[in-house]
Amino acid sequence: MKKLVLLRHGESLWNKENRFTGWTDVDLTEKGVEEAYHAGELMKSENLRFDKVYTSYLKRAVKTMNCVLDVMDLEWIPVEKSWRLNEKHYGILQGLNKAETAKQYGEEQVLIWRRSYDVAPGALTDDDPRNPRFELKYKKVPVRDLPRTESLKNAIERILPYWKEVIFPAFSKSDQLLVVAHGNSLRGIIKELNHISDQDIVQLDLPTGIPYVFEFNDKGEKMKDYFLGDPEELNRRLSAVRAQGKKK
Amino acid sequence: MKKLVLLRHGESLWNKENRFTGWTDVDLTEKGVEEAYHAGELMKSENLRFDKVYTSYLKRAVKTMNCVLDVMDLEWIPVEKSWRLNEKHYGILQGLNKAETAKQYGEEQVLIWRRSYDVAPGALTDDDPRNPRFELKYKKVPVRDLPRTESLKNAIERILPYWKEVIFPAFSKSDQLLVVAHGNSLRGIIKELNHISDQDIVQLDLPTGIPYVFEFNDKGEKMKDYFLGDPEELNRRLSAVRAQGKKK
Repeated sequence: MKKLVLLRHGESLWNKENRFTGWTDVDLTEKGVEEAYHAGELMKSENLRFDKVYTSYLKRAVKTMNCVLDVMDLEWIPVEKSWRLNEKHYGILQGLNKAETAKQYGEEQVLIWRRSYDVAPGALTDDDPRNPRFELKYKKVPVRDLPRTESLKNAIERILPYWKEVIFPAFSKSDQLLVVAHGNSLRGIIKELNHISDQDIVQLDLPTGIPYVFEFNDKGEKMKDYFLGDPEELNRRLSAVRAQGKKK
Repeated sequence: MKKLVLLRHGESLWNKENRFTGWTDVDLTEKGVEEAYHAGELMKSENLRFDKVYTSYLKRAVKTMNCVLDVMDLEWIPVEKSWRLNEKHYGILQGLNKAETAKQYGEEQVLIWRRSYDVAPGALTDDDPRNPRFELKYKKVPVRDLPRTESLKNAIERILPYWKEVIFPAFSKSDQLLVVAHGNSLRGIIKELNHISDQDIVQLDLPTGIPYVFEFNDKGEKMKDYFLGDPEELNRRLSAVRAQGKKK
Protein backbone atom coordinates (compact mmCIF):
# COMPACT_ATOMS: atom_id res chain seq x y z
CA MET A 1 0.00 0.00 0.00
CA LYS A 2 1.20 3.47 -0.94
CA LYS A 3 0.41 6.64 0.99
CA LEU A 4 0.26 10.28 0.01
CA VAL A 5 -0.14 12.96 2.66
CA LEU A 6 -1.16 16.51 1.82
CA LEU A 7 -0.47 19.21 4.37
CA ARG A 8 -1.52 22.85 4.23
CA HIS A 9 0.96 25.20 5.92
CA GLY A 10 0.17 26.71 9.32
CA GLU A 11 -0.97 30.27 10.00
CA SER A 12 1.08 32.96 8.27
CA LEU A 13 1.48 36.61 9.20
CA TRP A 14 -0.97 37.64 6.52
CA ASN A 15 -3.51 34.94 7.44
CA LYS A 16 -3.42 36.61 10.84
CA GLU A 17 -3.70 40.09 9.35
CA ASN A 18 -6.47 38.76 7.05
CA ARG A 19 -4.71 39.96 3.89
CA PHE A 20 -4.64 38.33 0.45
CA THR A 21 -1.29 36.59 0.29
CA GLY A 22 -0.97 34.51 -2.90
CA TRP A 23 2.65 34.54 -4.02
CA THR A 24 3.76 37.06 -1.39
CA ASP A 25 6.46 35.30 0.61
CA VAL A 26 5.31 35.95 4.18
CA ASP A 27 6.53 34.03 7.20
CA LEU A 28 4.66 31.74 9.61
CA THR A 29 3.34 33.15 12.88
CA GLU A 30 4.23 31.48 16.18
CA LYS A 31 0.83 29.78 16.02
CA GLY A 32 1.65 28.60 12.49
CA VAL A 33 4.86 27.00 13.78
CA GLU A 34 2.85 25.28 16.54
CA GLU A 35 0.36 23.99 13.96
CA ALA A 36 3.24 22.61 11.91
CA TYR A 37 4.73 20.79 14.90
CA HIS A 38 1.28 19.46 15.81
CA ALA A 39 0.85 18.11 12.27
CA GLY A 40 4.26 16.46 12.57
CA GLU A 41 3.22 14.84 15.87
CA LEU A 42 0.04 13.48 14.28
CA MET A 43 2.02 11.91 11.42
CA LYS A 44 4.65 10.58 13.79
CA SER A 45 2.00 8.87 15.92
CA GLU A 46 0.71 7.18 12.72
CA ASN A 47 4.25 5.81 12.18
CA LEU A 48 4.43 7.48 8.78
CA ARG A 49 7.90 7.29 7.21
CA PHE A 50 8.12 9.43 4.10
CA ASP A 51 10.57 8.63 1.34
CA LYS A 52 10.44 12.14 -0.07
CA VAL A 53 8.77 15.51 0.46
CA TYR A 54 7.59 18.11 -2.04
CA THR A 55 6.97 21.75 -1.25
CA SER A 56 6.59 25.16 -2.88
CA TYR A 57 9.01 28.09 -3.22
CA LEU A 58 7.21 29.96 -0.44
CA LYS A 59 8.72 30.03 3.04
CA ARG A 60 5.46 29.41 4.90
CA ALA A 61 5.35 25.98 3.23
CA VAL A 62 9.11 25.28 3.46
CA LYS A 63 9.18 26.18 7.16
CA THR A 64 6.10 24.08 7.89
CA MET A 65 7.94 21.20 6.22
CA ASN A 66 11.08 21.88 8.32
CA CYS A 67 9.04 21.65 11.54
CA VAL A 68 7.40 18.41 10.38
CA LEU A 69 10.71 16.77 9.42
CA ASP A 70 12.17 17.91 12.75
CA VAL A 71 9.51 16.29 14.91
CA MET A 72 9.39 13.15 12.72
CA ASP A 73 13.20 12.78 12.82
CA LEU A 74 13.26 12.84 9.01
CA GLU A 75 15.62 15.76 8.33
CA TRP A 76 17.61 13.51 6.02
CA ILE A 77 14.92 12.74 3.43
CA PRO A 78 15.14 14.32 -0.02
CA VAL A 79 13.22 17.56 -0.55
CA GLU A 80 12.02 18.87 -3.90
CA LYS A 81 10.76 22.43 -4.19
CA SER A 82 8.70 23.71 -7.09
CA TRP A 83 7.11 27.07 -7.94
CA ARG A 84 4.27 24.99 -9.41
CA LEU A 85 3.14 24.12 -5.88
CA ASN A 86 2.83 27.82 -4.94
CA GLU A 87 -0.48 29.24 -3.74
CA LYS A 88 -2.91 30.66 -6.31
CA HIS A 89 -1.69 34.09 -7.45
CA TYR A 90 -4.08 36.78 -6.24
CA GLY A 91 -3.11 39.49 -8.75
CA ILE A 92 -3.77 43.07 -7.69
CA LEU A 93 -5.45 41.87 -4.47
CA GLN A 94 -2.13 40.67 -3.03
CA GLY A 95 -1.42 42.65 0.12
CA LEU A 96 -4.97 43.99 0.54
CA ASN A 97 -6.93 43.29 3.71
CA LYS A 98 -9.78 40.86 3.03
CA ALA A 99 -12.28 42.64 5.27
CA GLU A 100 -11.37 46.06 3.78
CA THR A 101 -11.70 44.60 0.30
CA ALA A 102 -15.11 43.17 1.30
CA LYS A 103 -16.22 46.61 2.53
CA GLN A 104 -14.99 48.29 -0.64
CA TYR A 105 -16.16 45.81 -3.27
CA GLY A 106 -18.84 43.95 -1.30
CA GLU A 107 -18.69 40.50 0.26
CA GLU A 108 -20.18 39.00 -2.85
CA GLN A 109 -17.41 40.24 -5.13
CA VAL A 110 -14.75 39.04 -2.68
CA LEU A 111 -16.45 35.66 -2.55
CA ILE A 112 -16.37 35.56 -6.36
CA TRP A 113 -12.65 36.31 -6.35
CA ARG A 114 -11.97 33.82 -3.60
CA ARG A 115 -14.42 31.14 -4.56
CA SER A 116 -15.29 31.20 -8.24
CA TYR A 117 -13.60 28.59 -10.35
CA ASP A 118 -12.61 30.66 -13.34
CA VAL A 119 -12.75 34.34 -12.37
CA ALA A 120 -9.32 35.80 -11.63
CA PRO A 121 -8.67 39.08 -9.78
CA GLY A 122 -7.20 41.90 -11.89
CA ALA A 123 -3.74 41.12 -13.26
CA LEU A 124 -0.57 42.83 -12.06
CA THR A 125 0.93 45.15 -14.64
CA ASP A 126 4.32 44.32 -16.15
CA ASP A 127 6.06 46.89 -13.97
CA ASP A 128 4.19 46.23 -10.73
CA PRO A 129 6.87 45.52 -8.11
CA ARG A 130 4.76 42.53 -7.01
CA ASN A 131 5.20 40.95 -10.47
CA PRO A 132 7.00 37.60 -9.95
CA ARG A 133 9.33 38.32 -12.86
CA PHE A 134 11.26 40.70 -10.59
CA GLU A 135 11.95 37.99 -8.03
CA LEU A 136 15.26 36.15 -7.95
CA LYS A 137 13.53 32.89 -7.04
CA TYR A 138 11.68 32.75 -10.38
CA LYS A 139 14.61 33.74 -12.60
CA LYS A 140 14.83 30.22 -14.06
CA VAL A 141 11.10 30.05 -14.81
CA PRO A 142 10.17 31.23 -18.33
CA VAL A 143 8.39 34.60 -17.98
CA ARG A 144 5.47 33.31 -20.07
CA ASP A 145 4.81 30.70 -17.35
CA LEU A 146 4.80 33.22 -14.49
CA PRO A 147 1.29 34.35 -13.52
CA ARG A 148 0.28 37.98 -12.96
CA THR A 149 -3.03 36.75 -11.53
CA GLU A 150 -4.81 33.40 -11.41
CA SER A 151 -8.29 31.96 -11.15
CA LEU A 152 -8.50 28.66 -9.27
CA LYS A 153 -8.72 27.05 -12.72
CA ASN A 154 -5.47 28.71 -13.82
CA ALA A 155 -3.73 27.66 -10.61
CA ILE A 156 -4.89 24.04 -10.94
CA GLU A 157 -3.77 23.93 -14.59
CA ARG A 158 -0.34 25.11 -13.43
CA ILE A 159 -0.13 22.57 -10.62
CA LEU A 160 -1.44 19.42 -12.30
CA PRO A 161 1.49 18.83 -14.69
CA TYR A 162 3.77 18.72 -11.66
CA TRP A 163 1.44 16.29 -9.87
CA LYS A 164 1.08 14.05 -12.93
CA GLU A 165 4.66 14.16 -14.18
CA VAL A 166 6.69 14.44 -11.00
CA ILE A 167 4.93 13.58 -7.74
CA PHE A 168 2.62 10.70 -8.67
CA PRO A 169 5.26 8.87 -10.78
CA ALA A 170 7.60 8.97 -7.76
CA PHE A 171 5.46 6.21 -6.23
CA SER A 172 7.22 3.81 -8.60
CA LYS A 173 10.18 3.94 -6.21
CA SER A 174 8.57 5.28 -3.01
CA ASP A 175 5.95 4.04 -0.59
CA GLN A 176 5.09 7.27 1.18
CA LEU A 177 5.18 10.82 -0.14
CA LEU A 178 4.44 14.11 1.60
CA VAL A 179 3.35 17.36 -0.06
CA VAL A 180 3.48 20.51 2.06
CA ALA A 181 1.80 23.34 0.19
CA HIS A 182 -1.14 25.74 0.11
CA GLY A 183 -4.95 25.72 0.19
CA ASN A 184 -5.38 26.15 -3.54
CA SER A 185 -2.44 24.15 -4.85
CA LEU A 186 -3.57 21.19 -2.72
CA ARG A 187 -7.12 21.65 -4.02
CA GLY A 188 -5.76 20.89 -7.48
CA ILE A 189 -4.38 17.54 -6.38
CA ILE A 190 -7.52 16.68 -4.37
CA LYS A 191 -9.76 17.61 -7.32
CA GLU A 192 -7.82 15.21 -9.51
CA LEU A 193 -7.73 12.34 -6.99
CA ASN A 194 -11.36 12.59 -5.89
CA HIS A 195 -12.81 13.54 -9.30
CA ILE A 196 -14.38 16.70 -7.92
CA SER A 197 -16.30 18.94 -10.35
CA ASP A 198 -15.34 22.55 -11.10
CA GLN A 199 -18.45 23.66 -9.18
CA ASP A 200 -17.72 21.56 -6.10
CA ILE A 201 -13.99 22.18 -5.76
CA VAL A 202 -14.58 25.83 -4.86
CA GLN A 203 -16.61 24.68 -1.83
CA LEU A 204 -13.88 22.36 -0.58
CA ASP A 205 -12.06 23.83 2.40
CA LEU A 206 -8.81 22.43 3.64
CA PRO A 207 -7.85 23.02 7.28
CA THR A 208 -4.35 24.30 8.12
CA GLY A 209 -1.99 21.90 9.81
CA ILE A 210 -4.17 18.76 9.58
CA PRO A 211 -2.57 15.99 7.48
CA TYR A 212 -4.85 14.62 4.75
CA VAL A 213 -3.98 11.00 3.90
CA PHE A 214 -4.65 9.18 0.61
CA GLU A 215 -4.07 5.45 0.33
CA PHE A 216 -3.42 3.71 -2.99
CA ASN A 217 -3.22 0.05 -3.91
CA ASP A 218 -0.27 -1.30 -5.87
CA LYS A 219 -1.98 -0.43 -9.16
CA GLY A 220 -2.01 3.22 -8.07
CA GLU A 221 -5.78 3.24 -7.55
CA LYS A 222 -7.04 5.33 -4.66
CA MET A 223 -8.55 3.15 -1.93
CA LYS A 224 -9.49 5.73 0.71
CA ASP A 225 -8.75 9.18 2.08
CA TYR A 226 -9.07 10.64 5.57
CA PHE A 227 -7.80 13.39 7.87
CA LEU A 228 -5.58 12.58 10.82
CA GLY A 229 -6.39 13.68 14.35
CA ASP A 230 -9.40 14.74 16.35
CA PRO A 231 -12.56 15.40 14.24
CA GLU A 232 -13.60 18.27 16.53
CA GLU A 233 -10.25 19.98 16.02
CA LEU A 234 -10.73 19.49 12.28
CA ASN A 235 -14.12 21.22 12.41
CA ARG A 236 -12.76 24.11 14.49
CA ARG A 237 -10.04 24.71 11.91
CA LEU A 238 -12.44 24.50 8.99
CA SER A 239 -14.69 27.12 10.63
CA ALA A 240 -11.67 29.38 11.08
CA VAL A 241 -10.80 29.07 7.38
CA ARG A 242 -14.40 29.77 6.35
CA ALA A 243 -14.60 32.90 8.55
CA GLN A 244 -11.86 34.61 6.54
CA GLY A 245 -12.99 37.29 4.10
CA LYS A 246 -16.07 38.28 6.08
CA LYS A 247 -16.52 41.92 7.05
CA LYS A 248 -15.38 42.42 10.61
CA MET B 1 33.66 34.70 -10.61
CA LYS B 2 32.29 31.62 -8.85
CA LYS B 3 32.03 31.23 -5.07
CA LEU B 4 31.95 28.21 -2.81
CA VAL B 5 31.17 28.62 0.88
CA LEU B 6 31.88 25.88 3.39
CA LEU B 7 30.09 26.05 6.73
CA ARG B 8 30.61 23.80 9.74
CA HIS B 9 27.44 23.26 11.79
CA GLY B 10 26.98 25.03 15.13
CA GLU B 11 27.36 23.49 18.57
CA SER B 12 25.54 20.18 19.04
CA LEU B 13 24.38 18.54 22.26
CA TRP B 14 27.36 16.20 22.22
CA ASN B 15 29.85 18.96 21.42
CA LYS B 16 28.55 20.50 24.61
CA GLU B 17 28.77 17.21 26.52
CA ASN B 18 32.23 16.68 25.00
CA ARG B 19 31.33 13.26 23.57
CA PHE B 20 32.50 11.64 20.33
CA THR B 21 29.61 12.13 17.92
CA GLY B 22 30.52 10.95 14.42
CA TRP B 23 27.43 9.56 12.72
CA THR B 24 25.26 9.84 15.85
CA ASP B 25 22.37 12.08 14.87
CA VAL B 26 22.32 14.58 17.73
CA ASP B 27 20.55 17.91 17.65
CA LEU B 28 21.94 21.46 17.83
CA THR B 29 22.03 23.28 21.17
CA GLU B 30 20.46 26.70 21.52
CA LYS B 31 23.96 28.14 21.12
CA GLY B 32 24.37 26.06 17.95
CA VAL B 33 21.19 27.59 16.52
CA GLU B 34 22.54 31.07 17.38
CA GLU B 35 25.83 30.26 15.66
CA ALA B 36 23.90 29.16 12.57
CA TYR B 37 21.88 32.37 12.45
CA HIS B 38 25.06 34.39 12.97
CA ALA B 39 26.69 32.59 10.03
CA GLY B 40 23.61 33.38 7.94
CA GLU B 41 23.85 37.06 8.89
CA LEU B 42 27.53 37.15 7.87
CA MET B 43 26.73 35.66 4.45
CA LYS B 44 23.72 37.93 4.02
CA SER B 45 25.86 41.01 4.72
CA GLU B 46 28.25 39.80 1.97
CA ASN B 47 25.26 39.73 -0.43
CA LEU B 48 25.84 36.08 -1.15
CA ARG B 49 23.06 34.50 -3.21
CA PHE B 50 23.45 30.75 -3.43
CA ASP B 51 22.04 28.79 -6.34
CA LYS B 52 22.07 25.53 -4.43
CA VAL B 53 23.02 24.06 -1.06
CA TYR B 54 24.51 20.68 -0.15
CA THR B 55 24.34 19.10 3.26
CA SER B 56 24.68 15.76 5.06
CA TYR B 57 22.09 13.30 6.40
CA LEU B 58 22.72 14.53 9.95
CA LYS B 59 20.26 16.93 11.57
CA ARG B 60 22.89 19.21 13.12
CA ALA B 61 23.96 20.10 9.56
CA VAL B 62 20.44 20.17 8.06
CA LYS B 63 19.16 22.43 10.85
CA THR B 64 22.17 24.75 10.56
CA MET B 65 21.31 25.01 6.86
CA ASN B 66 17.65 25.75 7.65
CA CYS B 67 18.67 28.64 9.92
CA VAL B 68 21.01 30.02 7.26
CA LEU B 69 18.39 29.84 4.49
CA ASP B 70 15.87 31.48 6.83
CA VAL B 71 18.00 34.52 7.61
CA MET B 72 19.19 34.81 3.99
CA ASP B 73 15.62 34.59 2.65
CA LEU B 74 16.66 31.64 0.49
CA GLU B 75 14.22 28.94 1.66
CA TRP B 76 13.33 28.31 -1.98
CA ILE B 77 16.73 27.19 -3.27
CA PRO B 78 17.32 23.51 -4.08
CA VAL B 79 18.83 21.36 -1.35
CA GLU B 80 20.74 18.15 -1.92
CA LYS B 81 21.53 15.87 1.02
CA SER B 82 24.15 13.14 0.92
CA TRP B 83 25.41 10.61 3.47
CA ARG B 84 28.83 11.20 1.87
CA LEU B 85 28.98 14.61 3.56
CA ASN B 86 28.48 13.05 7.02
CA GLU B 87 31.05 13.54 9.76
CA LYS B 88 33.92 11.04 10.09
CA HIS B 89 32.60 7.84 11.69
CA TYR B 90 34.14 7.40 15.15
CA GLY B 91 33.56 3.66 15.49
CA ILE B 92 33.38 2.33 19.04
CA LEU B 93 34.21 5.77 20.44
CA GLN B 94 30.81 7.15 19.38
CA GLY B 95 28.94 8.21 22.51
CA LEU B 96 31.99 8.22 24.80
CA ASN B 97 33.02 11.36 26.67
CA LYS B 98 36.26 12.77 25.24
CA ALA B 99 37.73 13.72 28.61
CA GLU B 100 36.83 10.31 30.12
CA THR B 101 38.36 8.61 27.11
CA ALA B 102 41.49 10.75 27.57
CA LYS B 103 41.71 9.68 31.23
CA GLN B 104 41.22 6.03 30.34
CA TYR B 105 43.45 5.75 27.26
CA GLY B 106 45.70 8.78 27.78
CA GLU B 107 45.57 12.12 25.97
CA GLU B 108 48.10 10.89 23.46
CA GLN B 109 45.94 7.97 22.31
CA VAL B 110 42.88 10.24 22.02
CA LEU B 111 44.94 12.68 20.00
CA ILE B 112 45.96 9.83 17.71
CA TRP B 113 42.32 8.84 17.22
CA ARG B 114 41.26 12.42 16.71
CA ARG B 115 44.24 13.71 14.80
CA SER B 116 46.11 10.97 13.00
CA TYR B 117 45.49 10.77 9.28
CA ASP B 118 45.13 7.04 8.86
CA VAL B 119 44.47 5.49 12.29
CA ALA B 120 40.81 4.64 12.82
CA PRO B 121 39.20 3.91 16.22
CA GLY B 122 38.02 0.32 16.73
CA ALA B 123 35.24 -0.74 14.33
CA LEU B 124 31.66 -1.33 15.43
CA THR B 125 30.66 -4.98 15.28
CA ASP B 126 28.02 -6.10 12.78
CA ASP B 127 25.37 -6.29 15.48
CA ASP B 128 26.29 -3.14 17.40
CA PRO B 129 23.09 -1.07 17.57
CA ARG B 130 25.19 1.95 16.52
CA ASN B 131 26.00 0.25 13.19
CA PRO B 132 24.61 2.49 10.41
CA ARG B 133 23.16 -0.53 8.61
CA PHE B 134 20.32 -0.55 11.18
CA GLU B 135 19.32 3.01 10.38
CA LEU B 136 16.41 3.74 8.05
CA LYS B 137 18.25 6.73 6.57
CA TYR B 138 20.99 4.54 5.09
CA LYS B 139 18.73 1.80 3.71
CA LYS B 140 19.45 2.87 0.13
CA VAL B 141 23.22 2.94 0.65
CA PRO B 142 24.97 -0.38 -0.18
CA VAL B 143 26.05 -1.99 3.11
CA ARG B 144 29.62 -2.35 1.78
CA ASP B 145 29.81 1.47 1.53
CA LEU B 146 28.64 2.07 5.10
CA PRO B 147 31.52 2.61 7.55
CA ARG B 148 31.81 0.89 10.93
CA THR B 149 34.69 3.22 11.78
CA GLU B 150 36.81 5.69 9.79
CA SER B 151 40.21 7.30 9.86
CA LEU B 152 40.35 10.83 8.47
CA LYS B 153 41.78 9.22 5.32
CA ASN B 154 38.79 6.87 5.03
CA ALA B 155 36.36 9.76 5.55
CA ILE B 156 38.07 11.92 2.93
CA GLU B 157 38.07 9.05 0.43
CA ARG B 158 34.33 8.69 1.00
CA ILE B 159 33.67 12.42 0.61
CA LEU B 160 35.86 13.30 -2.38
CA PRO B 161 33.87 11.42 -5.06
CA TYR B 162 30.84 13.48 -4.07
CA TRP B 163 32.86 16.70 -4.23
CA LYS B 164 34.42 15.82 -7.60
CA GLU B 165 31.39 14.28 -9.29
CA VAL B 166 28.49 16.26 -7.83
CA ILE B 167 29.33 19.54 -6.09
CA PHE B 168 32.19 20.97 -8.16
CA PRO B 169 30.57 20.12 -11.55
CA ALA B 170 27.46 22.03 -10.43
CA PHE B 171 29.43 25.25 -11.04
CA SER B 172 28.79 24.68 -14.74
CA LYS B 173 25.27 26.02 -14.14
CA SER B 174 25.68 27.85 -10.82
CA ASP B 175 27.63 30.85 -9.60
CA GLN B 176 27.46 30.30 -5.85
CA LEU B 177 27.25 27.05 -3.94
CA LEU B 178 26.98 26.42 -0.20
CA VAL B 179 28.05 23.28 1.65
CA VAL B 180 26.86 22.90 5.26
CA ALA B 181 28.58 19.93 6.82
CA HIS B 182 31.05 18.77 9.49
CA GLY B 183 34.62 19.40 10.62
CA ASN B 184 36.07 16.34 8.94
CA SER B 185 33.93 16.18 5.80
CA LEU B 186 34.82 19.81 5.10
CA ARG B 187 38.50 19.05 5.73
CA GLY B 188 38.32 16.68 2.77
CA ILE B 189 37.18 19.44 0.44
CA ILE B 190 39.68 21.95 1.84
CA LYS B 191 42.54 19.43 1.51
CA GLU B 192 41.67 18.99 -2.15
CA LEU B 193 41.24 22.70 -2.91
CA ASN B 194 44.33 23.91 -1.04
CA HIS B 195 46.56 20.90 -1.85
CA ILE B 196 47.22 20.19 1.82
CA SER B 197 49.41 17.22 2.69
CA ASP B 198 48.20 14.24 4.75
CA GLN B 199 50.43 15.44 7.60
CA ASP B 200 49.16 19.01 7.56
CA ILE B 201 45.43 18.35 7.13
CA VAL B 202 45.23 16.83 10.62
CA GLN B 203 46.42 20.16 12.05
CA LEU B 204 43.79 22.18 10.21
CA ASP B 205 40.98 23.29 12.51
CA LEU B 206 37.73 24.64 11.21
CA PRO B 207 35.67 26.92 13.47
CA THR B 208 31.95 26.27 13.90
CA GLY B 209 29.55 28.74 12.33
CA ILE B 210 32.13 30.83 10.45
CA PRO B 211 31.64 30.75 6.66
CA TYR B 212 34.78 29.83 4.71
CA VAL B 213 34.72 31.34 1.20
CA PHE B 214 36.58 30.05 -1.88
CA GLU B 215 36.63 32.11 -5.05
CA PHE B 216 37.22 30.58 -8.49
CA ASN B 217 37.81 32.13 -11.88
CA ASP B 218 35.79 31.06 -14.90
CA LYS B 219 38.26 28.25 -15.62
CA GLY B 220 37.44 26.79 -12.20
CA GLU B 221 40.86 27.71 -10.79
CA LYS B 222 40.92 28.78 -7.15
CA MET B 223 41.83 32.45 -6.81
CA LYS B 224 41.58 32.99 -3.05
CA ASP B 225 40.02 31.76 0.17
CA TYR B 226 39.09 33.57 3.37
CA PHE B 227 36.83 33.41 6.42
CA LEU B 228 33.98 35.87 6.84
CA GLY B 229 33.55 38.01 9.94
CA ASP B 230 35.67 39.28 12.78
CA PRO B 231 39.17 37.70 12.99
CA GLU B 232 39.08 37.79 16.82
CA GLU B 233 35.83 35.87 16.85
CA LEU B 234 37.45 33.38 14.47
CA ASN B 235 40.36 32.87 16.86
CA ARG B 236 38.05 32.45 19.86
CA ARG B 237 36.16 29.72 18.05
CA LEU B 238 39.31 27.95 16.93
CA SER B 239 40.58 27.89 20.52
CA ALA B 240 37.27 26.37 21.64
CA VAL B 241 37.58 23.61 19.02
CA ARG B 242 41.19 22.91 20.03
CA ALA B 243 40.30 22.66 23.73
CA GLN B 244 38.07 19.64 23.09
CA GLY B 245 39.49 16.25 24.08
CA LYS B 246 41.68 17.59 26.86
CA LYS B 247 41.35 16.12 30.32
CA LYS B 248 39.18 18.36 32.46
